[in-house]
Amino acid sequence: MPLNISWVESANTPDTDFPLNNLPYGAFVSDAGEPHCGVAIGDMILDVTALEADGVLAVPEEEEVFFFGDWSEFMTLGPEIWTGFRDALTELLSEAYADPQGLTGYMVPQVGTQMLMPFTVSEFTDFYASKNHASNVGTMFRGPENALPPNWLSMPIGYNGRASSVVVSGTDVRRPWGQLKSPDAELPVFAPCKRFDIELEMGAIVGQPSEGPVTVAEADDMIFGYVLLNDWSARDIQAWEYQPLGPFQSKATATTISPWIVPKAALEEFRVDTPNRERPLLEHLTEPGPMLYDIALEVGMAPEGKSETVIARTNYREMYYSSAQQLAHHSTSGCPMRVGDLLGSGTISGPEKDQRGALLEITWGGKEPITLDTGETRSFIEDGDTLTLRGAAIGDGYRVGFGACVGTVLPALDDPYKR
Amino acid sequence: MPLNISWVESANTPDTDFPLNNLPYGAFVSDAGEPHCGVAIGDMILDVTALEADGVLAVPEEEEVFFFGDWSEFMTLGPEIWTGFRDALTELLSEAYADPQGLTGYMVPQVGTQMLMPFTVSEFTDFYASKNHASNVGTMFRGPENALPPNWLSMPIGYNGRASSVVVSGTDVRRPWGQLKSPDAELPVFAPCKRFDIELEMGAIVGQPSEGPVTVAEADDMIFGYVLLNDWSARDIQAWEYQPLGPFQSKATATTISPWIVPKAALEEFRVDTPNRERPLLEHLTEPGPMLYDIALEVGMAPEGKSETVIARTNYREMYYSSAQQLAHHSTSGCPMRVGDLLGSGTISGPEKDQRGALLEITWGGKEPITLDTGETRSFIEDGDTLTLRGAAIGDGYRVGFGACVGTVLPALDDPYKR
Repeated sequence: MPLNISWVESANTPDTDFPLNNLPYGAFVSDAGEPHCGVAIGDMILDVTALEADGVLAVPEEEEVFFFGDWSEFMTLGPEIWTGFRDALTELLSEAYADPQGLTGYMVPQVGTQMLMPFTVSEFTDFYASKNHASNVGTMFRGPENALPPNWLSMPIGYNGRASSVVVSGTDVRRPWGQLKSPDAELPVFAPCKRFDIELEMGAIVGQPSEGPVTVAEADDMIFGYVLLNDWSARDIQAWEYQPLGPFQSKATATTISPWIVPKAALEEFRVDTPNRERPLLEHLTEPGPMLYDIALEVGMAPEGKSETVIARTNYREMYYSSAQQLAHHSTSGCPMRVGDLLGSGTISGPEKDQRGALLEITWGGKEPITLDTGETRSFIEDGDTLTLRGAAIGDGYRVGFGACVGTVLPALDDPYKR
Repeated sequence: MPLNISWVESANTPDTDFPLNNLPYGAFVSDAGEPHCGVAIGDMILDVTALEADGVLAVPEEEEVFFFGDWSEFMTLGPEIWTGFRDALTELLSEAYADPQGLTGYMVPQVGTQMLMPFTVSEFTDFYASKNHASNVGTMFRGPENALPPNWLSMPIGYNGRASSVVVSGTDVRRPWGQLKSPDAELPVFAPCKRFDIELEMGAIVGQPSEGPVTVAEADDMIFGYVLLNDWSARDIQAWEYQPLGPFQSKATATTISPWIVPKAALEEFRVDTPNRERPLLEHLTEPGPMLYDIALEVGMAPEGKSETVIARTNYREMYYSSAQQLAHHSTSGCPMRVGDLLGSGTISGPEKDQRGALLEITWGGKEPITLDTGETRSFIEDGDTLTLRGAAIGDGYRVGFGACVGTVLPALDDPYKR
């Protein structure tokens, strides 16, 4: 598919994340200070809430779908509406549109506009589905013989995370306190986390509900779109707490998502297969077609006031399980899935050291610190560091991107109980 | 505190769960088929939504608090409103009230009335905080040397569950399918669960939000009330999936709560201390006073069409950690807590075999089946079995109860993917 030309000229440059082929969904603070729904095009945001209010572009037979500045209501309307609305947006923004001047009043520059959570997270589930990541972490936590748990090749291992802690890109993240126990200590202490980390992930957003188990094909149909996702992780809290029931407070400080939800439709042409199965999957988890996407990903790290170093480059196609498989597995027990459920892919790591999606892996548990371009070294995140995830599917002369997924780590409070 | 006498005579009998001292909150289907908020008194329900609509009893300066038949909006108003409203209800229903005839039109019999979820569950967290239970399960899963994980005496171990699967008492529960791997098999199969179980728990409902870490005293102030909670568990699915990230689909089929939320205020006089600490707790988890409650609990099991056998009797005071401690721990990382968060205590087991809150423990993993009064034996739940939790704090001549927390297990679907 070639670049689709828009009358918004900044959308036609090869380096924008937001050509007409993309049209991702976000939420922003309007001039009047209200949350509005918007669509990114080049370096602008098209104000969808204002378009609906003025009757320029509305979902047929629906009112106030975008009134609250949240895409959840739109998601509930289902795939036919998603397609129809995207087609209408494409027409409005295409080069051939007759009245571009009529739309300029609905355009807001991205620069200087505050972004908001684009949807209401119902529940957040995080998976562990990149084989390189699972093998690396397993080796560190349990030794090379037990690196991959016995169930790993049979199901996408996941755990329920905390929806209340999901925040949009640009939100500062406060270093947490927690129980830490060093290997040589007999008892834990309550202290600020010393091993604060990122996890480079993709997030799939469930846009349609289910009651009973769904097939992988049905699960794929339920997915509305994808975001970049950084699951901030307190590795020292995690090591002490995670047995036997899994990570809990180590993952509950914050999870940052990109400001833009890329619709599944914009990613269709970038579909790729999951890798060959090392153990045949049970039938209910087999895929009817390619369910991963070729999305180039990178992580940048910038100490306070200094320039950024890219510390990892990988690709979403490195996953062993797709989001559709994860959603199918999630439903096997009859677990009701709801509009707004967010499924983190799990940390995405390639086979090489500089393709790993977490500092835990890059620095091998802190034993092999990295040196940034500024000359500083890092084992884990230090106060003031800004971490940025970027991702895009690369087309012929254009890219379908997510915008930056950014967070700066603030120092821990001196006394977290002081009011 | 003596029995508080009501003009509703059925509330003054010693065997009702709902004397005037209780006044628990529920939701029910009105004659017009709408969800209404109600308060249990004796064998009746006082229709709070209708009282508000008619201006007989309203929260001062608020409108439509009960309009949607859900107590979540009331919870957001905070402890002062909770107290004021409870006082007003107590006055309306007390023996001294001047116009009882005026209220009879707002009374609905409990018998024959369909109950609904009394609040919107924001997120569900389940803990593992009874020492007898953790020791029993740990012994079965990991051997007696590793029964209690090293962290267990330092923090209330918990994991995030699935809010979408929480249902109200009376909802049938469909036996799930899942991945099962028998110890002697090399690979798993996808099949109906063979080891379906209950977990006898109490649930604490968070009624006020928090942003940063909260103390145990602050956590206690945030709790709105308590329910009985049955966390249905698929033990065979759990055994295969739970390493390394904890239970997932094994706990996602359903969690049943009692129809009535007993306000914290109704339980005040039944407060008891947690047991002596076997390892001193870190300061942020120490309790400023008694945070458990003396609540007698029991589990009944009835095969289809047969009478019930009580298979376990225990008490909420058997917990090692209180809900206030669990909530405080939950907030340590800065995890935002929200109105409507539901915290399961974890299975409550006493030291004796007939005091255990799960069949897994009662039958020791199925190796020691129990015999019911009907002569049948059970290792785990069979299709058609009805499981009922009951609980009450026992006062002098009255009981403060929760109503029955009931679920009947339906057979697994022949083909869960057939539509």
